[in-house]
Amino acid sequence: MKKLINAPEDVVVDALQGIEAAHPDLRVDHAHKVIYRGDSPRNGKVGIISGGGSGHEPLHGGFVGLGMLDAACAGEVFTSPVPDQMLAATKLVDGGAGVLHVVKNYTGDVMNFEMAAELAAAETGTQVVSVVTDDDVAVQDSTWTAGRRGVGVTVLLEKIAGAAAEQGRSLEQVADVARTVNANGRSMGLALTSCTVPAAGKPTFELGDDEYELGVGIHGEPGRERRKLATAKEYASLLVEPIIADLPYAKGDAVVCFVNGLGGTPLIELYVLYNEVAKILDKHGVQVARSLVGSYITSLDMAGASVTLLRVDDELMSLWDAPVRTPALRWGI
Amino acid sequence: MKKLINAPEDVVVDALQGIEAAHPDLRVDHAHKVIYRGDSPRNGKVGIISGGGSGHEPLHGGFVGLGMLDAACAGEVFTSPVPDQMLAATKLVDGGAGVLHVVKNYTGDVMNFEMAAELAAAETGTQVVSVVTDDDVAVQDSTWTAGRRGVGVTVLLEKIAGAAAEQGRSLEQVADVARTVNANGRSMGLALTSCTVPAAGKPTFELGDDEYELGVGIHGEPGRERRKLATAKEYASLLVEPIIADLPYAKGDAVVCFVNGLGGTPLIELYVLYNEVAKILDKHGVQVARSLVGSYITSLDMAGASVTLLRVDDELMSLWDAPVRTPALRWGI
Repeated sequence: MKKLINAPEDVVVDALQGIEAAHPDLRVDHAHKVIYRGDSPRNGKVGIISGGGSGHEPLHGGFVGLGMLDAACAGEVFTSPVPDQMLAATKLVDGGAGVLHVVKNYTGDVMNFEMAAELAAAETGTQVVSVVTDDDVAVQDSTWTAGRRGVGVTVLLEKIAGAAAEQGRSLEQVADVARTVNANGRSMGLALTSCTVPAAGKPTFELGDDEYELGVGIHGEPGRERRKLATAKEYASLLVEPIIADLPYAKGDAVVCFVNGLGGTPLIELYVLYNEVAKILDKHGVQVARSLVGSYITSLDMAGASVTLLRVDDELMSLWDAPVRTPALRWGI
Repeated sequence: MKKLINAPEDVVVDALQGIEAAHPDLRVDHAHKVIYRGDSPRNGKVGIISGGGSGHEPLHGGFVGLGMLDAACAGEVFTSPVPDQMLAATKLVDGGAGVLHVVKNYTGDVMNFEMAAELAAAETGTQVVSVVTDDDVAVQDSTWTAGRRGVGVTVLLEKIAGAAAEQGRSLEQVADVARTVNANGRSMGLALTSCTVPAAGKPTFELGDDEYELGVGIHGEPGRERRKLATAKEYASLLVEPIIADLPYAKGDAVVCFVNGLGGTPLIELYVLYNEVAKILDKHGVQVARSLVGSYITSLDMAGASVTLLRVDDELMSLWDAPVRTPALRWGI
């Protein structure tokens, strides 16, 4: 297994130490594997936490900081954090205005975040609202979910809800913004290769040298179908057309266009793909208001990409443009 | 070949179109394959250009913008741009205060940038100063260079010299800052896998399943030796100790610590490596003043990483901290 790691069982612990060492603004509660803002809790500000299995970096830990998340819980690779982690994170960021839980729709995550919210209410009386992301149009139910999977929209939601919280809005208002983002966002991805989970030591699934998986999930779970390798133009079409048809996005809509790498795909390929995506949107009359190109929600070393569209109005755009200062997303400050 | 591309011969053209579509602040001269700031030339500001073979993204095009490069020339994959490209870029960014050429030490790049500087002087009388980076301690001469190769320091130099130019310093002053950065920076990298050049369609070199290449170059050119796979702790030691011994970095020195992915390595592994690097620096009493963790100078889809240290004083640190607004590096604005 070709990875820059020590022992497979130490990957998450070691990476958390690396994050703490590299980013002086952040703190890590190593006992609970929680990354949090050094200035937590912010008195009177709604706290926002997220979390999930590790292996999707920079999601979520790389999005902790001013204008985005207050804390992130790191589970083992591709494994939901346990409720005690989210409970610890909730306490760390509770500034008296309530805490929003951002949860990707995977069975384990949903269950464990729910339990944490109940524990927080019982132990400290903290008001918690959960918003679940389920933006992946590839499959309705999957091996990991009832309903759709939560993928790329989670990144955009954490940014936009984070800005709303930074403005001093109430928990219900921040949760409303978050729900609006999820309702207006759709995603789909494809894998050129499998990923390799460190503890397994071999690829999660087998793909022929001439095949790719369309609609793959971020843990390598199956998508819609396997197809023969094609061109960036065809990949873009097979990702974007189902996304557009699903919401549907209409002529005149303004969107944030997010082309994401899955971990093993370099940036030059993402720009080639972005170019094809932009041409399809143009053909449909969908206007790209903002774009994001890079590897922000990954699947370990998987080669491949996903596309996320988020329909935005002036309100969401202004929250998107608001200052953010995290390891992986930063502007305006 | 598993890549998100159309035809191999169109990769650079397509990626440039993608960059232009994704980043409204930037412009692309497609005839010359030059990415430049939309507000070029800046009257009275020293212009800074760089360039080189494509396949190292975001270097250099992703570093065009306020506080960093004014323009970047994109050669074919792993192939130097031709002098006409650098000439076009020099003209585009010439605001009357002269133009700095930042050149990585590879034979083709050095020769072609030199020729472009002569052409610019002859055609428009533009004053050009070139600064060459040669920070790779792995090998003295290589298949691609006389002397050491220019690698990770180039990223840090473009940021710091860019800030100096933005402050209105003269060409000689900006060039001095650039030379100081190169003189105080050292790098070394390793490859877990080869990369695959699109036009070749197969890996540049063969590495056994249990091997890695220590001291690899960013085109896959040979390094110091092939070794059996080891741990992140050992990789860090084999990269950092030669860097420290080379300058040498001494107890009490403050550094920018830059842990860079080569394109196919995901962020979680870079943080594991960063943690080991930080421990070694701590042991030597070298103080990390700033850190940068991510894939900023890549080798297509190669799995692996490099480490760069840059010794900084208050002056370099303040230039590092100055606002920058490019696709790949952004803060303060």
